[in-house]
Amino acid sequence: ELAEMLESSPPKERSILWKGIPTDKQGEVLAHLNDEVRANLLGELETHEIIEITEELPIDDIVDIAQSLEGHEQKEFVASLDDSNREAVQLAMTYGDDTAGGLMSPDFISVRADVSLGVVLRYLRQLGDLPPSTTALLVRDRDDHYVGCLQLRYLLTHDEDCEVHEFVDQAVPAVNVYTSTKDVAHLFEKQDLIFAPVVDDQNTILGRITIDDVVDIIREEAEHRQMASAGLDEDEDIFAPASRAAKRRTFWLGINLLTAIFASIVIGFFDASIEKVVALAVLMPIIASMGGIAGTQTATIVIRALATGKLGKSNSRSLLIKESTVGLYNGFIWAIFTGLAVLVLFQDWQLSAIFATAMLINLVAAAFAGAMIPLILQRMQIDPALASGLMLTTVTDSLGFFVFLGLATIVLI
Amino acid sequence: ELAEMLESSPPKERSILWKGIPTDKQGEVLAHLNDEVRANLLGELETHEIIEITEELPIDDIVDIAQSLEGHEQKEFVASLDDSNREAVQLAMTYGDDTAGGLMSPDFISVRADVSLGVVLRYLRQLGDLPPSTTALLVRDRDDHYVGCLQLRYLLTHDEDCEVHEFVDQAVPAVNVYTSTKDVAHLFEKQDLIFAPVVDDQNTILGRITIDDVVDIIREEAEHRQMASAGLDEDEDIFAPASRAAKRRTFWLGINLLTAIFASIVIGFFDASIEKVVALAVLMPIIASMGGIAGTQTATIVIRALATGKLGKSNSRSLLIKESTVGLYNGFIWAIFTGLAVLVLFQDWQLSAIFATAMLINLVAAAFAGAMIPLILQRMQIDPALASGLMLTTVTDSLGFFVFLGLATIVLI
Ligand SMILES: [Mg+2]
Ligand SMILES: [Mg+2]
Ligand SMILES: [Mg+2]
Ligand SMILES: [Mg+2]
Ligand SMILES: [Mg+2]
Ligand SMILES: [Mg+2]
Ligand SMILES: [Mg+2]
Ligand SMILES: [Mg+2]
Ligand SMILES: [Mg+2]
Ligand SMILES: [Mg+2]
Ligand SMILES: [Mg+2]
Ligand SMILES: [Mg+2]
Ligand SMILES: [Mg+2]
Repeated sequence: ELAEMLESSPPKERSILWKGIPTDKQGEVLAHLNDEVRANLLGELETHEIIEITEELPIDDIVDIAQSLEGHEQKEFVASLDDSNREAVQLAMTYGDDTAGGLMSPDFISVRADVSLGVVLRYLRQLGDLPPSTTALLVRDRDDHYVGCLQLRYLLTHDEDCEVHEFVDQAVPAVNVYTSTKDVAHLFEKQDLIFAPVVDDQNTILGRITIDDVVDIIREEAEHRQMASAGLDEDEDIFAPASRAAKRRTFWLGINLLTAIFASIVIGFFDASIEKVVALAVLMPIIASMGGIAGTQTATIVIRALATGKLGKSNSRSLLIKESTVGLYNGFIWAIFTGLAVLVLFQDWQLSAIFATAMLINLVAAAFAGAMIPLILQRMQIDPALASGLMLTTVTDSLGFFVFLGLATIVLI
Repeated sequence: ELAEMLESSPPKERSILWKGIPTDKQGEVLAHLNDEVRANLLGELETHEIIEITEELPIDDIVDIAQSLEGHEQKEFVASLDDSNREAVQLAMTYGDDTAGGLMSPDFISVRADVSLGVVLRYLRQLGDLPPSTTALLVRDRDDHYVGCLQLRYLLTHDEDCEVHEFVDQAVPAVNVYTSTKDVAHLFEKQDLIFAPVVDDQNTILGRITIDDVVDIIREEAEHRQMASAGLDEDEDIFAPASRAAKRRTFWLGINLLTAIFASIVIGFFDASIEKVVALAVLMPIIASMGGIAGTQTATIVIRALATGKLGKSNSRSLLIKESTVGLYNGFIWAIFTGLAVLVLFQDWQLSAIFATAMLINLVAAAFAGAMIPLILQRMQIDPALASGLMLTTVTDSLGFFVFLGLATIVLI
């Protein structure tokens, strides 16, 4: 709650708000902030302050905060932790932020498969309290390998003499520690998990991942595509100082400038034709703009399908054919409609025919490019969400101008 | 898993795949499909087949499927359910798809706050089995009002003589049955919940919502913004028949055409100027395009902030100021840079000055419009994700052309 208020406040109010938060709450708030806002706040705090306010946090949040710190401060912070926490933080940091290892929390409870429920019950009573959000125990075999989990509810409704292995729930799969957080999120979604154990290559349990952290990944991943299409980072702080925000966005504008210049060069080839028939200059943005929209529709669908794993080698051909067919349908519809409109307005059937032809070609090409560009980028390991939009509009603008002005030059001039 | 394979298959393979799924799995697969693919599949099945394959499903999935059926078939389906299921389905359907009532499942277990843990334990043993994904019991007072929940783990680690109210966890808030699913998702995310009870206006427990269904809402909501910006529905089936897909998208192209025509009309005002100075036609798309990108960056940030509740009346002024400042920064940078480029290429200081001025004005206006348009749409209760993009490019294109060509006409002609 407070974390959100902080994120939605302009910088000045933010520091007043922060000082108003009771010290024992500050740690929790810090854990819930987004990366950029957190990094800024941490930058303003002294290391000893950070250590104090994070003392009571669960381990996985301490890991997150350690990851937000830099160089010197990070070392000091990690050194200040008590032994067990330090080990856990160092471990998580070696696996990296975007792996299951970086997401996991080492506070799990495991039991052997060959003991009775009664033994488990006594063990739990002896522990006195279970880690927060424990909803099941992890079950391991004699060699400490993960075999499944034991839902707490079975402990409550079954006889003490039964053995653990009779109730092992194998529907909860183990996640390898090097699995990407994206794949972890996908697994949780598909299988409706609320936690999953993390194991190493030998299937030995290292920790567990809980749904609350996965929810953050799911949202980030989905938002990443939305933000990336405008060249933005999903961690963007809405109240970042204007100069910093401008610096980041100016890069994207620069790339766009290059693509816009490319389209201008195409127009430049035909300046003689435009001089003679000014209607060309009036009509040409319509063709480019329709191509841009049609291509973006296709690309948006393809980018999402790629990100959610629904598009691979096996079905990308079918999709390409389907999208091109959609382009053909829309191309004919709008070519005829706009062609007639041009005929009525300009009373020139040649101009009208040229306009309609260029519209048809550009809409079909836009659908094709809208599907191909993300597929090719993905194969080249470039993030399609980030680069597709600009590449696509370069194609649809340039091709639209080229076909329209080119046809006009041949036919009219 | 199978549901995903179905979604990523073209129509022909899809029906072969579906027939290959064992009948006892078909229900589960159906429950996991996205809305559009599910509705199509259901359309091809006979009502009695649907009834058979959904018999074993949990209630909330039956509700989802009932919601996907239409008129006549829906009535037949609901009538076929056994009493308790029918009641639950009818109840959920009266609340509607996008409320907590439509999302909830009525299979919860509740206990009185004034009994001992021992009594609870005996009660659970008597029940024999708890509903799937039960991780806590709901606690009610003498008048059946919700007071909090009892985590199963407390039952395992505390003394039988303790009373339930000693361990009531009040951190799990009840959700009113009419709360929107969007707000429910927001609450789950903020508070890291894995379930929440649903109550009526009298605070009486009606059911519970579990995180797996909320995860679907969270993803849908985030993807909605990405898809809506291209005029698409987040339920879009990637292998919808081309004619159907074209029909839906053509509407969006039509709206775009209107906006593009508007920009063309602006150009048309200045056709005499373009005839005299063709360089204007070559350069004008660059100004429009840069404005479009800068505005989109701002709008994307604002749309996300609005959707995640981080932007309200209190801070929208600060944001407007910040974004306009960013526009000013970027406007100056690119006005100077591109102005110099034009000077070098065209050797015309007047043209260069006009170009730079138009670039500056358009970039500042783009940032301002990029922030204002989503804010205004939100206030008018129009989905900003859907309408902002086209409105914004109409502004940036038309204004870009107008300022550039207008200045040129005054100064050069
Ligand atoms: Mg973490
Ligand atoms: Mg799911
Ligand atoms: Mg956690
Ligand atoms: Mg967290
Ligand atoms: Mg991040
Ligand atoms: Mg970042
Ligand atoms: Mg439901
Ligand atoms: Mg959370
Ligand atoms: Mg469910
Ligand atoms: Mg579900
Ligand atoms: Mg839906
Ligand atoms: Mg739909
Ligand atoms: Mg454009």
